[in-house]
Amino acid sequence: MHVVKSPLSNAAQKTVSDALQGALVDLIDLSLVAKQVHWNVVGPRFRSVHLQLDEVVDTARTHSDTVAERASALGVPPDGRAATVAAKSGISVVSEGWVKDTDAVEALVAALGAVITRMRERVAATGDADPVSQDIFIGITADLEKHHWMFQAENA
Amino acid sequence: MHVVKSPLSNAAQKTVSDALQGALVDLIDLSLVAKQVHWNVVGPRFRSVHLQLDEVVDTARTHSDTVAERASALGVPPDGRAATVAAKSGISVVSEGWVKDTDAVEALVAALGAVITRMRERVAATGDADPVSQDIFIGITADLEKHHWMFQAENA
Amino acid sequence: MHVVKSPLSNAAQKTVSDALQGALVDLIDLSLVAKQVHWNVVGPRFRSVHLQLDEVVDTARTHSDTVAERASALGVPPDGRAATVAAKSGISVVSEGWVKDTDAVEALVAALGAVITRMRERVAATGDADPVSQDIFIGITADLEKHHWMFQAENA
Amino acid sequence: MHVVKSPLSNAAQKTVSDALQGALVDLIDLSLVAKQVHWNVVGPRFRSVHLQLDEVVDTARTHSDTVAERASALGVPPDGRAATVAAKSGISVVSEGWVKDTDAVEALVAALGAVITRMRERVAATGDADPVSQDIFIGITADLEKHHWMFQAENA
Amino acid sequence: MHVVKSPLSNAAQKTVSDALQGALVDLIDLSLVAKQVHWNVVGPRFRSVHLQLDEVVDTARTHSDTVAERASALGVPPDGRAATVAAKSGISVVSEGWVKDTDAVEALVAALGAVITRMRERVAATGDADPVSQDIFIGITADLEKHHWMFQAENA
Amino acid sequence: MHVVKSPLSNAAQKTVSDALQGALVDLIDLSLVAKQVHWNVVGPRFRSVHLQLDEVVDTARTHSDTVAERASALGVPPDGRAATVAAKSGISVVSEGWVKDTDAVEALVAALGAVITRMRERVAATGDADPVSQDIFIGITADLEKHHWMFQAENA
Amino acid sequence: MHVVKSPLSNAAQKTVSDALQGALVDLIDLSLVAKQVHWNVVGPRFRSVHLQLDEVVDTARTHSDTVAERASALGVPPDGRAATVAAKSGISVVSEGWVKDTDAVEALVAALGAVITRMRERVAATGDADPVSQDIFIGITADLEKHHWMFQAENA
Amino acid sequence: MHVVKSPLSNAAQKTVSDALQGALVDLIDLSLVAKQVHWNVVGPRFRSVHLQLDEVVDTARTHSDTVAERASALGVPPDGRAATVAAKSGISVVSEGWVKDTDAVEALVAALGAVITRMRERVAATGDADPVSQDIFIGITADLEKHHWMFQAENA
Amino acid sequence: MHVVKSPLSNAAQKTVSDALQGALVDLIDLSLVAKQVHWNVVGPRFRSVHLQLDEVVDTARTHSDTVAERASALGVPPDGRAATVAAKSGISVVSEGWVKDTDAVEALVAALGAVITRMRERVAATGDADPVSQDIFIGITADLEKHHWMFQAENA
Amino acid sequence: MHVVKSPLSNAAQKTVSDALQGALVDLIDLSLVAKQVHWNVVGPRFRSVHLQLDEVVDTARTHSDTVAERASALGVPPDGRAATVAAKSGISVVSEGWVKDTDAVEALVAALGAVITRMRERVAATGDADPVSQDIFIGITADLEKHHWMFQAENA
Amino acid sequence: MHVVKSPLSNAAQKTVSDALQGALVDLIDLSLVAKQVHWNVVGPRFRSVHLQLDEVVDTARTHSDTVAERASALGVPPDGRAATVAAKSGISVVSEGWVKDTDAVEALVAALGAVITRMRERVAATGDADPVSQDIFIGITADLEKHHWMFQAENA
Amino acid sequence: MHVVKSPLSNAAQKTVSDALQGALVDLIDLSLVAKQVHWNVVGPRFRSVHLQLDEVVDTARTHSDTVAERASALGVPPDGRAATVAAKSGISVVSEGWVKDTDAVEALVAALGAVITRMRERVAATGDADPVSQDIFIGITADLEKHHWMFQAENA
Repeated sequence: MHVVKSPLSNAAQKTVSDALQGALVDLIDLSLVAKQVHWNVVGPRFRSVHLQLDEVVDTARTHSDTVAERASALGVPPDGRAATVAAKSGISVVSEGWVKDTDAVEALVAALGAVITRMRERVAATGDADPVSQDIFIGITADLEKHHWMFQAENA
Repeated sequence: MHVVKSPLSNAAQKTVSDALQGALVDLIDLSLVAKQVHWNVVGPRFRSVHLQLDEVVDTARTHSDTVAERASALGVPPDGRAATVAAKSGISVVSEGWVKDTDAVEALVAALGAVITRMRERVAATGDADPVSQDIFIGITADLEKHHWMFQAENA
Repeated sequence: MHVVKSPLSNAAQKTVSDALQGALVDLIDLSLVAKQVHWNVVGPRFRSVHLQLDEVVDTARTHSDTVAERASALGVPPDGRAATVAAKSGISVVSEGWVKDTDAVEALVAALGAVITRMRERVAATGDADPVSQDIFIGITADLEKHHWMFQAENA
Repeated sequence: MHVVKSPLSNAAQKTVSDALQGALVDLIDLSLVAKQVHWNVVGPRFRSVHLQLDEVVDTARTHSDTVAERASALGVPPDGRAATVAAKSGISVVSEGWVKDTDAVEALVAALGAVITRMRERVAATGDADPVSQDIFIGITADLEKHHWMFQAENA
Repeated sequence: MHVVKSPLSNAAQKTVSDALQGALVDLIDLSLVAKQVHWNVVGPRFRSVHLQLDEVVDTARTHSDTVAERASALGVPPDGRAATVAAKSGISVVSEGWVKDTDAVEALVAALGAVITRMRERVAATGDADPVSQDIFIGITADLEKHHWMFQAENA
Repeated sequence: MHVVKSPLSNAAQKTVSDALQGALVDLIDLSLVAKQVHWNVVGPRFRSVHLQLDEVVDTARTHSDTVAERASALGVPPDGRAATVAAKSGISVVSEGWVKDTDAVEALVAALGAVITRMRERVAATGDADPVSQDIFIGITADLEKHHWMFQAENA
Repeated sequence: MHVVKSPLSNAAQKTVSDALQGALVDLIDLSLVAKQVHWNVVGPRFRSVHLQLDEVVDTARTHSDTVAERASALGVPPDGRAATVAAKSGISVVSEGWVKDTDAVEALVAALGAVITRMRERVAATGDADPVSQDIFIGITADLEKHHWMFQAENA
Repeated sequence: MHVVKSPLSNAAQKTVSDALQGALVDLIDLSLVAKQVHWNVVGPRFRSVHLQLDEVVDTARTHSDTVAERASALGVPPDGRAATVAAKSGISVVSEGWVKDTDAVEALVAALGAVITRMRERVAATGDADPVSQDIFIGITADLEKHHWMFQAENA
Repeated sequence: MHVVKSPLSNAAQKTVSDALQGALVDLIDLSLVAKQVHWNVVGPRFRSVHLQLDEVVDTARTHSDTVAERASALGVPPDGRAATVAAKSGISVVSEGWVKDTDAVEALVAALGAVITRMRERVAATGDADPVSQDIFIGITADLEKHHWMFQAENA
Repeated sequence: MHVVKSPLSNAAQKTVSDALQGALVDLIDLSLVAKQVHWNVVGPRFRSVHLQLDEVVDTARTHSDTVAERASALGVPPDGRAATVAAKSGISVVSEGWVKDTDAVEALVAALGAVITRMRERVAATGDADPVSQDIFIGITADLEKHHWMFQAENA
Repeated sequence: MHVVKSPLSNAAQKTVSDALQGALVDLIDLSLVAKQVHWNVVGPRFRSVHLQLDEVVDTARTHSDTVAERASALGVPPDGRAATVAAKSGISVVSEGWVKDTDAVEALVAALGAVITRMRERVAATGDADPVSQDIFIGITADLEKHHWMFQAENA
Repeated sequence: MHVVKSPLSNAAQKTVSDALQGALVDLIDLSLVAKQVHWNVVGPRFRSVHLQLDEVVDTARTHSDTVAERASALGVPPDGRAATVAAKSGISVVSEGWVKDTDAVEALVAALGAVITRMRERVAATGDADPVSQDIFIGITADLEKHHWMFQAENA
């Protein structure tokens, strides 16, 4: 079914839609991981980390919606189903059960770090193909690096 | 690590925490499925279904948070990770790619129906063990059945 | 026309939908009666009773919407037409014309009392058939009994 | 009981209060009819019509309050009881049970059309007797004709 | 100093500006009288009357601004100075000192009645000269007659 | 295509729809002219005039929507396309390029004056044919004359 | 009629209630004078002065309510009637008719200056008698002197 | 003085009103204890615990109002006076003076634990007598157990 | 445990902290007494007094927080526990059970009067020791005397 | 008249201001076209398309203001007059009269497509000359392509 | 240039304006220091201290505006330039680079302590010269001492 | 102390952090300069310029926070202390004392011009090193150039 006429050439569309699909999976998983730790964190910093994680969830949910709708706008149907997220996410699986606050912060430093590395590659890859999508990746990276700083500062 | 002292007996805690964990997985998957269709729906009813699906997402996200935190409050760490959701959800996998609006509505009727059946079993199973958790399942069922009616009415 | 697949057995559906239809008629009439007195009350307590009655109207309108949509969700089309309300309401007809504030308060004590009695019967009747609908009736009863107390306190 | 001193002559008061009482009954019934269809509509346009009908309900409730309080302000107690509405409304009785979206729109076109015709007669009848009440009828007519256009446009 | 070019003929401008200036003085005085009683009322209905009077003040202040700016828009500078209000108001002087709630309500019935009579004369006088100003007087009369009803209902 | 059944006679419909179409064009052009000056004004009063013009834009946009939808409600499709506006507007073309604040105020005095003259003719023309539309023109005139006063006061 | 038992000695009550009554009259008149100029100002600074004057009106109305209710709280009925204001205000009568913006600013500098001088005397007079009332006068003086600065700065 | 007619039998009323009175005392004391610690907590987690305690205060105040008004609605006057609270509360007395953050968290774990145990007994005791009151106790228990989890997680 | 370094001398700190501790107890008890009457008042003025009492509760809760935190800021841990309030409050114990509206108003006049007398002593006692705390007592007294007037006016 | 000193070289200023002027005309016309169809659309999807079009209007109005003010900020007076829009817009003229909902969606697909093509050319043309303006064009393109997707999805 | 006529004598003006200028410098520097630490703090309490510091920034910015405008209102132009702040602030220079959370709290305890000492001297110095300015210093001191307590409590 | 791991190479980090530190100093100084003039401006345009300057302050404060936190996110501690600002700002020192409105506008034109020149250099310098930071500089430049236009327009 052909739905949306892409404003991009085929090659550009392929480059950009791969980047968008990858970002979608990373961001959905980031929202699930942040919620998982939000519910399971324990320790003296419980409340602070619990609240901070919901801000990561907000960021991840908002941007996942943006990149999925951007893919649709470029004529490529996005895939954000649970199995796809479980198979393709760039974030390492977090352990189940209660997690100490110090470990929770480490887990987020790692998860954000993994997503940021891939997001910066998307910024580099898409500039020629589609500056509109690149601008979206730039904005996402800015938000993720701000969260990344805060969690690093917290375990310094 | 022992964190939270359960107000329930061991048997009751087992019954209730199984129900809560099952509900958590169903509700997270419902939020992912509703978003997936939200992005991929096409057809003359696109806008109406697109907006309606975000209301399902809101319901699913709010209640998934409630049941996960209820599990924590009963001393049982919840598991809402992508792989767990992909493996344990009561909702059938939705197809990838664009989906016609009529099919989108059918998909939601099916997904909501599956979750409702399981949620009503949880209402029945937890009344003796923990009326507090049962009351949460009752409230969730009410909301899901309202969404279910609307999607059924739409394809009538 | 078959529209919505009921999650209940036939017998349970009959019990619950009778209760919901009865509640719908009572609540619509309560909203009309409260508005009627809101416009016709006179006496030194005019302003206080006039404002208080609009809070009853809000309660009655909100809950009438909930029970009607609950009936639809159970596969039973609700009937809230004027003639149905006039014929089936559990509230005695209020007199036309100006009404003294003392009489206005008495009228509301009687109207609320009549609806509460029937609503408590619905709570008792529906617990086995559908705890979801029962929970709605319980919430409605709580609100009505709070209004009932206030009008009784006012004429004490 | 004499309560409010009318600013109008007896003849003018009679003309205007008849018009206000008629408008009150029509508007209350419009709110009940719109809610009835809001709950019972089915078909592909369900969500759109369902939402649109609540805007009619808002219009009808707001204006019914205005005309009832205007009657009181002119010294004539208004009558908005269910039996009065059932007996005196200018709107034809709508059928019970589920209603297809196309029929729902037709029903509203008819109901609004009936009320508009009578409301325009009230505009014509009250200009000399009381320009204040006439101005209220003019404002109501504007709102009703806007709703009327939208439902007609929908079935065009 | 000639400032604003009137859209009206000289005769029409004279008729309308007299009406607007008269309304301005009445409305400013109504706001002062309502505040005076707001501060001095005593008795069991103190709180109810105290709050009700601030709603009269809001009405009077809003409409006084409208009529003054309407005069300016017609090229006639309005006069709302204290001495002018004291000399030209259509409201009888209220007594100083504490005022019983029953007397307070009577005072407002009288004050509103006096302003309404004059405002209805303005509606009649300005229809031909300027329907725009007439429409403003009609709207003011509607609000004042609503307040008038409420105070009369309160002492019924 | 016949869409909306007019509540007016053919003659009345012709009179009123001409007036509405004329008002639509004037109001759209007023919004464009006010924005044009909003962007191009310079001089010591820049900020004050710049902000004031956006209030004119708000007024013009709101009322243009009202008259266009009123035309639709009377069964006459409105025409607000750029070429129609350019050809039929009652406002003289404003010059391109920067405009001194004093000239900007003069331009608005002229533009508003031209629209007001035509709007008052519409008030006079439509009273018999359709008091509902007339009431809309009266409200528009009131707002425009208020803006007109302010710009005149500013250059006095 | 004895209503409120004063927390002050007779002598202190006399001192403080004189100060409060004087402040009430000054503040009401300030609100009337500011509105008078708000409606009648003309000139290139029209919009700026017009808006600024409504902030003075807000200040004057808020504080007049506070001092009147403070008098009541001390057992002394306040007098804010038009004739009292016209006779006792510390502000010189402003001229009628259009007023140039430069003159408008001068008028406010003078009016605010007159009220400030008297308000500072009230601060000095009431410190021993009632520090609660003194604190109110101090807060009023701060607000008035801020307005005073702004109008002086504007004509500098 | 007989004020409110109970909808319950005498025996049921006795059971339920004892439960409500007990809950009222516990919840008021919880609000006082949480404020006491809110003011006296010190240590590195000061800010986090200080803010968290105000959320407990909000919960306790809201629910204490609900249970007191529920008692009134059942015809039993509630008693929330300081001496009654001091004598009947289920919470152990907290020490005076500064309290280290770790001890503050322990104190809340204990206080919440004591109230939860009694609240669950009330859920069990009132199901037959009055499902409306039981539903209120269920909702309170859910909120308290959520707070309980958070404080336990914090000291884990 | 030494926590906060006082900005005051030892003597001044003693004077001020005694005043703050006394005010804290009075204000907490005022909030409990006002709630007690809020729940138990009956009679024709029920609604008015019921609402008015919640405004007293708001005032008392806000100021009790301010004085307790002020004590902490001066290095003195505040004591707001139930037993302390029951033992040290300046307000006479109110009777249990339903209370007629007239008696309710009297009870508040007495309670507010008792607190005001002590609060004025605190204003007098703390001016030299700490003008910052004195300013807080002055603000509290202003609010309490305003409530006091209103209840006195109501029983006049 | 030289007003604003451009931060760009002459050549860069020429490139960028041509792009901004072109975007201004396209966006104003898009707002007029979307409103035109908003008023004239008919058919079963009337309400959905009617509401969707107002979101296009909001996007077009917001961005037209941004590009016009950006031109001013670069020292080039923008031209958004009706005749300029009619002559220079990149959007084909839409037909007058009622338009079926399917055709309405097609019209928007075409209009948005035309503007997007030109906007992407502006992104390409301005990167070297002024990355600040380019960033504005990128943001506009993202919003327009999102609307474009939705209308395409609707007719798929 | 003489701009604002001081309401104070020359001597009083000198005393008060010195105090205001000193407070201005201290408060601007406090806002800069709090922001500096807000950006550079690291350690487990990062988030808590980071958020707390923005509340100090809000306090400092609000009060710096108040004292600067108070100086203007007394006829003395305030000086809040960077070099003046750097030269005259009462706060010791904070070190550059990352700062551990414990040190961050100490730095704020010291900074607030320094400003409070000087602010209390201003309270003492200005009471006779200008009670209006003194009241402003009292309010500032209350806010600063509350922040001071919180940071001290945090390192206790 | 190593806190945050930079996502950039050492060379890129050096380039970008120099740009961010320079922007931070410029923006803080811009906020101080704008406030300085906000307090000291006099002349007929006082109110307009006074308000306009607070919008510059808002822009400068918001962006200074963004660039400082961006530096932290890149692993480089920002320096926004008063002495650093005084020494490194790109804005010329503004004179002390009252400033005529014309001069105030000139001062802002100069200050904004100086910051814009440096900000455009940062846009050019950072594109290769870090497109995320470059995007922030682009956004800041857009806002500053809009303010710059407005002040230039005002003195044209």
